[in-house]
Amino acid sequence: MMKSPKKVIRLSDLRSFRMKLPEPVGLVPTMGFLHEGHLSLVRQARKECASVVVSIFVNPTQFGPAEDLSKYPRDLERDLQLMSSAGVDLVWTPTMEEMYPAGYQTWVSLEELMKPLEGSMRPGHFRGVATVVSKLFNCVQPQKAYFGQKDAQQAAVIRRMSADLNFPIEVVICPIVREADGLAMSSRNIYLDARERQAALVLNRSLNAARSAYEKGERNASVLRKLVTDLINAEPLARLQYVSCADNETLMELVSLTGKTLLSMAVFLGKTRLIDNLVLG
Amino acid sequence: MMKSPKKVIRLSDLRSFRMKLPEPVGLVPTMGFLHEGHLSLVRQARKECASVVVSIFVNPTQFGPAEDLSKYPRDLERDLQLMSSAGVDLVWTPTMEEMYPAGYQTWVSLEELMKPLEGSMRPGHFRGVATVVSKLFNCVQPQKAYFGQKDAQQAAVIRRMSADLNFPIEVVICPIVREADGLAMSSRNIYLDARERQAALVLNRSLNAARSAYEKGERNASVLRKLVTDLINAEPLARLQYVSCADNETLMELVSLTGKTLLSMAVFLGKTRLIDNLVLG
Repeated sequence: MMKSPKKVIRLSDLRSFRMKLPEPVGLVPTMGFLHEGHLSLVRQARKECASVVVSIFVNPTQFGPAEDLSKYPRDLERDLQLMSSAGVDLVWTPTMEEMYPAGYQTWVSLEELMKPLEGSMRPGHFRGVATVVSKLFNCVQPQKAYFGQKDAQQAAVIRRMSADLNFPIEVVICPIVREADGLAMSSRNIYLDARERQAALVLNRSLNAARSAYEKGERNASVLRKLVTDLINAEPLARLQYVSCADNETLMELVSLTGKTLLSMAVFLGKTRLIDNLVLG
Repeated sequence: MMKSPKKVIRLSDLRSFRMKLPEPVGLVPTMGFLHEGHLSLVRQARKECASVVVSIFVNPTQFGPAEDLSKYPRDLERDLQLMSSAGVDLVWTPTMEEMYPAGYQTWVSLEELMKPLEGSMRPGHFRGVATVVSKLFNCVQPQKAYFGQKDAQQAAVIRRMSADLNFPIEVVICPIVREADGLAMSSRNIYLDARERQAALVLNRSLNAARSAYEKGERNASVLRKLVTDLINAEPLARLQYVSCADNETLMELVSLTGKTLLSMAVFLGKTRLIDNLVLG
């Protein structure tokens, strides 16, 4: 029987409750509307840390002007219930005003890792992510912080940012959690209608096909990209935005696969944009 | 009788010695070649903190390609002696390789505060400063950090950066320390020849003249700027680069003085560039 987490809003309250938490403290930063993917991060933190802190903040600075900030799904009551059962100690739901007060002007950015893939489609997105994660790190001062592999480029950005800026924090990346039929969990899956939801299975199916080819010895990046492209294009409701076969650390596109490789893609189903990925090697 | 400070180079050694220091820990970040200005920061830290850490690092990322990185004065032996007498607990002299390893790519920048004054003359300078200070903060994890008012824009940048990124650190700005004849202490004063050294007194003299005018009721920013300009121009060896009369927090140029005002200037004496400033109100 888990007890309800303490819930705080103000940074001063966060800091004073944080001081009393047994260490190591694990932080799971989220934008709320929690699903099994987030809960897997909480469970991993619970396993490795004496205390677990979850932040819920729909960070405006990582949304583009044409993106879904205002309609991003929110359900705090449900989130709190889920966290009670998961054994979270402290939930912090900061306000916009306290995170970005008047005169706010400091940004954390990465020269290379922000450019390709999601970065090229979503200008400013990773600057917003790197900045808010730096802020969350400094506010919560965890020993470990947990992020999902689902957002593969975000994981690469945060790993690099945390190492470059010498944060005294271990960044832990947890595996993608999928629905029974293979769709990667995402808060944005709620946007899909029934037909799109069915068609969205093509993402995981194409990754599995690439994995099979890789396991049979395929090491040509173009061949793997084409394999995914052809499968996505064969699904009438899906529109491929990009498919990438890149070094897992630098995110530089590869000619042939040698080390750890990130195969990733963005696909539109109607107006909903989904991403998925697979690490090979 | 003070004992010699512990001296460490590697970050892992810094972290392990830092863990044992009684808190609060005060950090004095320097580029070495210490003078009375640095020592005043150390003394303030000594007064307010249980432990004092000094970092010495000539940070390459805050020097422009045409600036004096390679000839920036260094004298570690002398610095260590000065710190022994000043009661420093831990001296950290990080290496370039550990601060900026291969693949380093993360930068901290401020949208507005980096643009004017020094920022406009030294592109990239404050990005380098904000980045290295973020790194030093995360490496040392002090409760307080001490900087000099001599670098007034740096002080404004670091105050804002630390607040914006929620560093759990109090930034303390200490007053300018001057030679007996009024020249603000600077590691770069060593570049001046005897005639330039004498001519350099015009900086402080013009600030004092502006202060007198202010105290007699002058609140017109243009009048104060002109007063300084005329005095600098009257010194044949001095060449004024800029004089500014700006809001002390935002660094926006003023029409008339109401709140706290930063009067600042950059002046060349031969090839040596000196800065000085005064806060009014």
